[in-house]
Amino acid sequence: MRTLYIANKNYSSWSLRPWLVLKAFNIPFEEKIIPFHDAKAWDEYKNIVPNKKVPCLIDDQTIVWDSLAIIEYLAEENPSIWPEDKLARAWARSASAQMHSGFQSLRNICGMNCGVRVKLNEITPALQNDLNQIDALWLQGLKKFEGPFLAGKTFSAIDAFFAPVIFRIQTYGLVVSDEAKQYVSLMLDLPEMKDWYRSALAEKWRDDPHEKDVLSVGQITLDHRS
Amino acid sequence: MRTLYIANKNYSSWSLRPWLVLKAFNIPFEEKIIPFHDAKAWDEYKNIVPNKKVPCLIDDQTIVWDSLAIIEYLAEENPSIWPEDKLARAWARSASAQMHSGFQSLRNICGMNCGVRVKLNEITPALQNDLNQIDALWLQGLKKFEGPFLAGKTFSAIDAFFAPVIFRIQTYGLVVSDEAKQYVSLMLDLPEMKDWYRSALAEKWRDDPHEKDVLSVGQITLDHRS
Ligand SMILES: N[C@@H](CCC(=O)N[C@@H](CS)C(=O)NCC(=O)O)C(=O)O
Ligand SMILES: N[C@@H](CCC(=O)N[C@@H](CS)C(=O)NCC(=O)O)C(=O)O
Repeated sequence: MRTLYIANKNYSSWSLRPWLVLKAFNIPFEEKIIPFHDAKAWDEYKNIVPNKKVPCLIDDQTIVWDSLAIIEYLAEENPSIWPEDKLARAWARSASAQMHSGFQSLRNICGMNCGVRVKLNEITPALQNDLNQIDALWLQGLKKFEGPFLAGKTFSAIDAFFAPVIFRIQTYGLVVSDEAKQYVSLMLDLPEMKDWYRSALAEKWRDDPHEKDVLSVGQITLDHRS
Repeated sequence: MRTLYIANKNYSSWSLRPWLVLKAFNIPFEEKIIPFHDAKAWDEYKNIVPNKKVPCLIDDQTIVWDSLAIIEYLAEENPSIWPEDKLARAWARSASAQMHSGFQSLRNICGMNCGVRVKLNEITPALQNDLNQIDALWLQGLKKFEGPFLAGKTFSAIDAFFAPVIFRIQTYGLVVSDEAKQYVSLMLDLPEMKDWYRSALAEKWRDDPHEKDVLSVGQITLDHRS
């Protein structure tokens, strides 16, 4: 049996990606949460996982760490995780790898925090630049492969890769183009995204470092968490 | 015909990865260098490539950007780019993805500059930590898959992914374990690594920002460039 180790659904952006792929493609797995505040659970976990981070997939003897490697690992047996069309697949892999190593300002300033709504103190030029690049990339995909998902008619790994950006746009009220807004709505309406969001809201844990990150960049205007 | 766009061989760590894979697996391609100082060439290039960075592979209609996506793209038709053994392949993909998104201190402090030798002013704890993690990861691979390459008997994508670290260890005289040192020698002796290194030394270009980066962290003790 496959086990996916993740952290708090409210905060853990990297965990969301492979989780969404597993759910959307109906791949059976067990989910284990290592909550950020649980030092003991993290100590044990770090003994096993080379990069000492979540997510990690354990499949019998095989340990696969890092969200992108997990997705490629799963795609070997479930090729439809990536778009079927060769051109769309190359585009989706490129955009996923770009997200995986880039957009640092968006990631640093707008940490994922699904359950709250935040008014940012300022939109720095670097943040605006990341947003513009993501918007342009989405529009390119939506146009090239005719939507409504980023690389064609159906949900694929590239949509999972940008899923944390979807929650960030919602949390921080980030302004994007009309076409991008439509795509954001489509993603927020996916049953799997709603499932993750519901669980995030239900979590009773508050992680200080993540909460402080938010307060250092803006004000919380709403908190939907239980 | 495939064209790989790269930047100066002396400095461009991300370019080295797919270039090495193409060479090591005898995949025919044309190489185009966009030198860092050539603003006009970069302007044209940035119009075409979504992430506005090198490397990028253009294969007829298909644009593949980002080193990791290029390697996955090539591996579709050349599966031996990744280890044949399933466990080794999962390990190699995980370690590649970890390198792709991590080890920021090593990357920031020890920028690739193949042709010089540098005495660092200090080894910060963050740099030492990155080095220790890489060393431990290499040893894990070498032990698990019995070497002499990171994921087994033959060169695979994971070795390409760490190739820039090999040059960094040489340039900055970074201290690693004996087993890691052996692996560094093996890699430096590969014909493809020697080929890249020779071309790097032959480049007459000096890129100011890259040269300043080096001078901000240490002193150049030797310069083998022409
Ligand atoms: N590149 C990794 C990044 C994973 C990552 O940064 N995970 C965070 C949580 S979202 C983490 O484990 N942080 C805990 C720590 O760094 O100690 C991936 O794609 O999986
Ligand atoms: N994640 C990208 C990183 C590429 C990258 O940062 N390339 C550098 C050169 S090694 C670059 O193009 N820099 C020029 C710029 O940022 O304008 C990849 O794996 O290809």
